[in-house]
Amino acid sequence: MAQTNIRGQSREALGDMDPLPSWNDTGPKKAIIAFITKTTKDGSAEFVPPAERVAVFDNDGTLWCEQPIPVQLFFALDRVKALAPQHPDWKTREPFASVLKGDLGTALAGGERALLELAAETHAGMSAVEFAQIVRDWIATAKHPKTGKRFTEMAYLPMLELLAYLRANAFKTFIISGGGIEFMRPWAEQVYGIPPEQVIGSSIKTQFELREGRPVLVRLPELNFYNDKDGKPVTINQHIGRRPVMAFGNSAGDKEMLEYTQGGTGARFMLLVLHDDAIREYAYGPALGLPDAKLGAFTQAVYDQAQKEGWTVVSQKNDWNQVFAS
Amino acid sequence: MAQTNIRGQSREALGDMDPLPSWNDTGPKKAIIAFITKTTKDGSAEFVPPAERVAVFDNDGTLWCEQPIPVQLFFALDRVKALAPQHPDWKTREPFASVLKGDLGTALAGGERALLELAAETHAGMSAVEFAQIVRDWIATAKHPKTGKRFTEMAYLPMLELLAYLRANAFKTFIISGGGIEFMRPWAEQVYGIPPEQVIGSSIKTQFELREGRPVLVRLPELNFYNDKDGKPVTINQHIGRRPVMAFGNSAGDKEMLEYTQGGTGARFMLLVLHDDAIREYAYGPALGLPDAKLGAFTQAVYDQAQKEGWTVVSQKNDWNQVFAS
Repeated sequence: MAQTNIRGQSREALGDMDPLPSWNDTGPKKAIIAFITKTTKDGSAEFVPPAERVAVFDNDGTLWCEQPIPVQLFFALDRVKALAPQHPDWKTREPFASVLKGDLGTALAGGERALLELAAETHAGMSAVEFAQIVRDWIATAKHPKTGKRFTEMAYLPMLELLAYLRANAFKTFIISGGGIEFMRPWAEQVYGIPPEQVIGSSIKTQFELREGRPVLVRLPELNFYNDKDGKPVTINQHIGRRPVMAFGNSAGDKEMLEYTQGGTGARFMLLVLHDDAIREYAYGPALGLPDAKLGAFTQAVYDQAQKEGWTVVSQKNDWNQVFAS
Repeated sequence: MAQTNIRGQSREALGDMDPLPSWNDTGPKKAIIAFITKTTKDGSAEFVPPAERVAVFDNDGTLWCEQPIPVQLFFALDRVKALAPQHPDWKTREPFASVLKGDLGTALAGGERALLELAAETHAGMSAVEFAQIVRDWIATAKHPKTGKRFTEMAYLPMLELLAYLRANAFKTFIISGGGIEFMRPWAEQVYGIPPEQVIGSSIKTQFELREGRPVLVRLPELNFYNDKDGKPVTINQHIGRRPVMAFGNSAGDKEMLEYTQGGTGARFMLLVLHDDAIREYAYGPALGLPDAKLGAFTQAVYDQAQKEGWTVVSQKNDWNQVFAS
């Protein structure tokens, strides 16, 4: 039914076009379309006024690939290498020393603390404008080690279609990520169509300063907010001030965001992306006989909760006919 | 030139209508219209793409009356009275004891610290949804002591016209206030046409909890962020992620926001509201021979800076032909 060329088509013909061509005609696609239909049709018992149509998306593993490690960690590792000449002490200080030796396992053995230290020392000290430019330069050239694609090319095509479909139905789409807010903003608009003011993530503190007489915001090596788990509803309220109607995630870090969305009155839609496609992407979801230890993993517990609560679970393998655009 | 009834007017006639009828045809109105014209006209050397059309507004004293004390302080005082039966210790504890005796001078002698204590104990403990309802109930009935109007009726008509004019020209309007973010959101959309996600203010911390099995955000008696002075550029960056093109304020608390706006490249517009109309509102601005001591006052120093930097200063007395809607 999909048209290859929509130019010159009548409105009716366009209305018949498949809004989610990369989704198979299985349960999740049907559930999404049924939800959009009932919440946007005037006179429907579950109609949601346009102003309240808020849809929130996790980023890593929900909108783009987060394996073998989250993209921002690749960025931080590259920053360590680039900045090493200015930091001779890193040669003997963890986690920097192991990063410089190429021993990622040891570098990350320190867990969240090691990650925060990497972020603080490589993401701070410059102005917000300078940092955005560093991110832009990096993301324009850095490549995924397995596919050789640019990271932005590893956004999930079905999710890009979904974002466009929601916006065409007057839903406002937001990112609610554990990743850095200022790491995502420089490219989120181009890749996802989500403007900076709708991108929310973890943040470090910034400080207003006059540098050479010009007002700038300087990034400080100090965590402001870690936007994961029960932090996600907090920033949703802080930044949006409305309870979302739809929420999309892929891991235990999204559990509270989905619960908070579900807890509102009226129609609600919650969805988890299950990574079970080792050929086209990575298989690391639950029910695959894998240990729950992976960072930010979609755990068995949150999978069980989804089943119990009626959240939609999308199998990459079965429900998507294409994963990436190219 | 203003039409009393726009129905049936041709597009040309509407185009000629005065977008700012409560503004006299003096410098500030001319400056605003000239700025909007040059930044929105395709092909203009100073054209600003729609996505970058961000305009930020202080609230107290810029969009609505802040005298004799800020509206939120009236709210806090009423909350102290309403909650006093549950807090017997307040009878002997400052600043509550003085509030309950009606001695505002002594209550506020503790300055910012006293204000924060009042806010923390009267604005916390409940869920975000419950707090919004408390605000809604209060603002629907509370009256200004001098005019007898509801506080929302004391929004400045010229500024309401300005907000509508900017939005008609694809500017996105934001509030950047020292006032409480969750105090403003319940009524800002109705009064100013500014949705919750574009209202930014001071905040206390909230915590995600399950209460009787339902997920809620509970307000904690702990300051999260005080959104004044050099805090304003910080939250502008945090929430919007773009440098504003236009900024509107009325006091020393807005100085850094105006500097930050001015510091961007391309066309910029900065404006300060000068309160010099004792008959229609209050006269407490600079150059009036008044002391600089008033809370949040538009000081002589920021007035001098406006003159020097070419920021537009609006005299309520000379530049507005009407202050309030009724």
